[in-house]
Formats: sequence, structure tokens, C-alpha cells
Amino acid sequence: MREMEKKILEEGRILPGNIVLVDSFLNQQVDVNFLQKMADEWYAYFGDRKVTKVMTVEASGISVATIVAMRFGVPLLFAKKYESYNLTGDRHQATVYSYTKGKTYTISISRRLLTSEDHVLIIDDFLAKGSALNGLIDLVKSAGATIAGIGIAIEKTFQSGGHELRQRGYEIYSLAQISGFDEDNHIFFEPEPII
Amino acid sequence: MREMEKKILEEGRILPGNIVLVDSFLNQQVDVNFLQKMADEWYAYFGDRKVTKVMTVEASGISVATIVAMRFGVPLLFAKKYESYNLTGDRHQATVYSYTKGKTYTISISRRLLTSEDHVLIIDDFLAKGSALNGLIDLVKSAGATIAGIGIAIEKTFQSGGHELRQRGYEIYSLAQISGFDEDNHIFFEPEPII
Repeated sequence: MREMEKKILEEGRILPGNIVLVDSFLNQQVDVNFLQKMADEWYAYFGDRKVTKVMTVEASGISVATIVAMRFGVPLLFAKKYESYNLTGDRHQATVYSYTKGKTYTISISRRLLTSEDHVLIIDDFLAKGSALNGLIDLVKSAGATIAGIGIAIEKTFQSGGHELRQRGYEIYSLAQISGFDEDNHIFFEPEPII
Repeated sequence: MREMEKKILEEGRILPGNIVLVDSFLNQQVDVNFLQKMADEWYAYFGDRKVTKVMTVEASGISVATIVAMRFGVPLLFAKKYESYNLTGDRHQATVYSYTKGKTYTISISRRLLTSEDHVLIIDDFLAKGSALNGLIDLVKSAGATIAGIGIAIEKTFQSGGHELRQRGYEIYSLAQISGFDEDNHIFFEPEPII
């Protein structure tokens, strides 16, 4: 069993609506030792990709992405999230719909900080329908930068986001892949990693 | 000259309204090597305080606080920020007014994660009028936890937040203290650290 799967079974809690609560080690409270192990696993996979920047979106992915940036020895970039669309020429912008909150956000990053020279490793804590991730990909593309890979802490493979992105050619390395739940809220994981 | 002061002079930009833009190394883009130096400086000052948790509020303080938590070998806690007040019994809540955004937020943390056993090091990127910091202090108090100290990356000592909190007995160690600007947007720092 993979490290992240074990951690979810030990510390995670399942809430109604197939929500996996990992606030004791991943968001809200963060187990920094465990984060270093996570970063090591992504580094083992993406370490040879000549990554120039690690990128995420605020807020809950920032902790993880910070440690990953440290592991790769490159700067971290985090996109800002706004409830309104700001008309400004000096920022790359993309739209993200949050299914949890039922709202549309604008995410953005300064043009100065993300350029066509960059080869970006995108890191996020969750992947379900993929809206946040698609927004991050849009930002990278609009800068003319390239994507070295995508690292996700917990992917829900019973939702379509990861599948669609893999079909479009993106390489996504998730540390745990939840394939479903039973009526008693037991978690099932993919038997083999899907990349 | 202190490390953070040098970094601000080298990479920071001054915007109208006495705003110090440090998005190339502290928020938005994050220089993780420099963050490790920052963490070392706080550890040199607060390292003997038996800190059980490092705490901040989302979003821009999370990167810094993550590296500090790693340096201290304790978990990181970050309070969530909401635009509405959520009636829920299982969370400590406090109110924060953002002068930059002209809005009131509710910040909160799970009661499970912050308890009377905790001795908390609060970390944040900026201190000006102190609204966010007062909110964090309120959360710690409402949990019955104690405060080991407060670490701030950049304090504006020409605003009143730090002075008021020090008068109330809190120990605040800031890595740079900006005392003012002249008409040409040159920055002045406090000649000696105020703690």
C-alpha cells in the first residue's frame, strides 16, 4: 500500500458527499515531515524534467508546493484567487469554477513571474473534476510556458478530471487515487497507479 | 544591514499608498532558499520556547509558516478565511478587517486541531495595523492555548499594530521593520530591532 493511502486510512475522515477530510495532515493542520516524503516521491518521478518553477493556486496547495519547490531547488509560484475579474494587462488570468463552493473565481499570476522560459511542475492537493487544474494549465499556456508534469496529492479517479487531462496528453502523478467508497464509507484505491 | 532589509531593497518595489511589493520572493513567487534563512533567524530567537505548533492564516503567510514549522519540527496550522460568518460549534472563530480590501472576514480553525495543550508560534508575512494578527491571537485564546511568540517577515512600524501588541505584552520578532518612506519612495528601516 502506498504511503499516502496509508495516511488517508489512518487519519482521514469521510464526510457526506464523498468528501475526504484530511485536515489533520494536509490542509488546515499540515504534517511537514509527511510533506517531505510526498516531495521525495514526486522528485523520484519528475526529478529529471528540468523544472524551473513549481506552481500552485492559493490556498490549500501552498504548503505542499512550498516543500516540493524546496526539494526541486526552484522558486514556488502561487496563483492568486479572486471573486471578481480584474481588468489588468499585467497579469495572466483564467477562470475556475469551484464545485464545493458553487462559485466562479478568477485566478491570476503576474506576467513578470511566469514567462515563456519556464518549464513548470504544477502541484495541487486534490484532483476531482479538474477545474482548478485546468485554470492553472490555462495560466501556464497563456504565458507561453511549458508543463513539465502535474503532481497531485489525492486524486478521485471516480470523477472525470484526471482522465480527461491524461487524454489531452498531460502526465499526472498522484500520490493516492481513490476509486470509490462503499455504503459504509470504506475507501477503495486504484490497485495500480494510473499516470 | 539585516538580510530581509537587503532583500527588500534589492527586489522589492514601492507602490502608491506605501505598499511594499515583494511578490518576487515572498508572496506570489517564493524564494524557498531565502525562506530557509528566515526560518533560521526565527529559530535562533524562539527556538527554546517549546513551541508545539506554528500557526498562520491563509493565504500568503502559508509558505513562510510551512518552512518555519519544518525548522521547529512541529505541525503547521493555518486558519481558513471566509467572507461570511459560519454558524458552527466545532470551530474557533474570529473577525478580521482587511484594510487592503475594505472587507471583514471570518477566520477559523477546527477545535480538534488547536487545544489548550498548545504553545503556538504565530507567523505572518506582514504586520501593519495588526488586524490579521489580532484575529490569530483571538483564535489561540479562544482555544485556551498559549502564545510562544510572534514572527513577522516585514513590519511597518509607522503603523500602530506592532506597538499596540507589544504594549499588551506580546513578543514580536520582525525580520525587517520599515519606519517610513521619503517622497522619492526610498525606504527607511528602524536602526535597531524593536522586539
